[in-house]
Amino acid sequence: MATTARTFDHPDLAGIELTTVLFALSDPARLDLVRQLAAKGPQTVAQCHTVDPDVPKSTFSHHLKTLRESGLIRNEPAGRQRTITLRRDELEARFPGLLAPLL
Amino acid sequence: MATTARTFDHPDLAGIELTTVLFALSDPARLDLVRQLAAKGPQTVAQCHTVDPDVPKSTFSHHLKTLRESGLIRNEPAGRQRTITLRRDELEARFPGLLAPLL
Repeated sequence: MATTARTFDHPDLAGIELTTVLFALSDPARLDLVRQLAAKGPQTVAQCHTVDPDVPKSTFSHHLKTLRESGLIRNEPAGRQRTITLRRDELEARFPGLLAPLL
Repeated sequence: MATTARTFDHPDLAGIELTTVLFALSDPARLDLVRQLAAKGPQTVAQCHTVDPDVPKSTFSHHLKTLRESGLIRNEPAGRQRTITLRRDELEARFPGLLAPLL
């Protein structure tokens, strides 16, 4: 493979902790982003940032990291872009009924 | 009334914010306490503290404050004790389906 795109770590299903997920969702900007991903499906990083373009890029990157490390999203290379995906089915398998009331 | 028991502020139903509730639930000790209140009904402060007696009293008091200010619990005088109650029906009215998957 010729790609040099950076790959990020993602917790596997068993490694997703409920309190870590709740913390990730406890920030209004992160909750909005999760809701957008649930409504629209996978988005590029640039599309995600349009949820609240006034958020500084560094803050936005930190939000993505918090969501990824909690297990809520995947952040994966897709050509020259990166795609952000909500791990909805996995979350439902791990914590049934958790996400639906929040979306 | 001759009581001198301290009364605490509690947010009314409309003032309960989803992200504040999620933050309050994102600590393992606080989540355990909410689960105990859901399972056993109202408890005295002393009974609540038995969930994890190794938690220092100051930390435990801070957890109770975070839960009360988020709208998850009531902390009210009852004679010489104080009673902690999960605001389960109110939470269900404000955010249907939120608590059940967590308990």
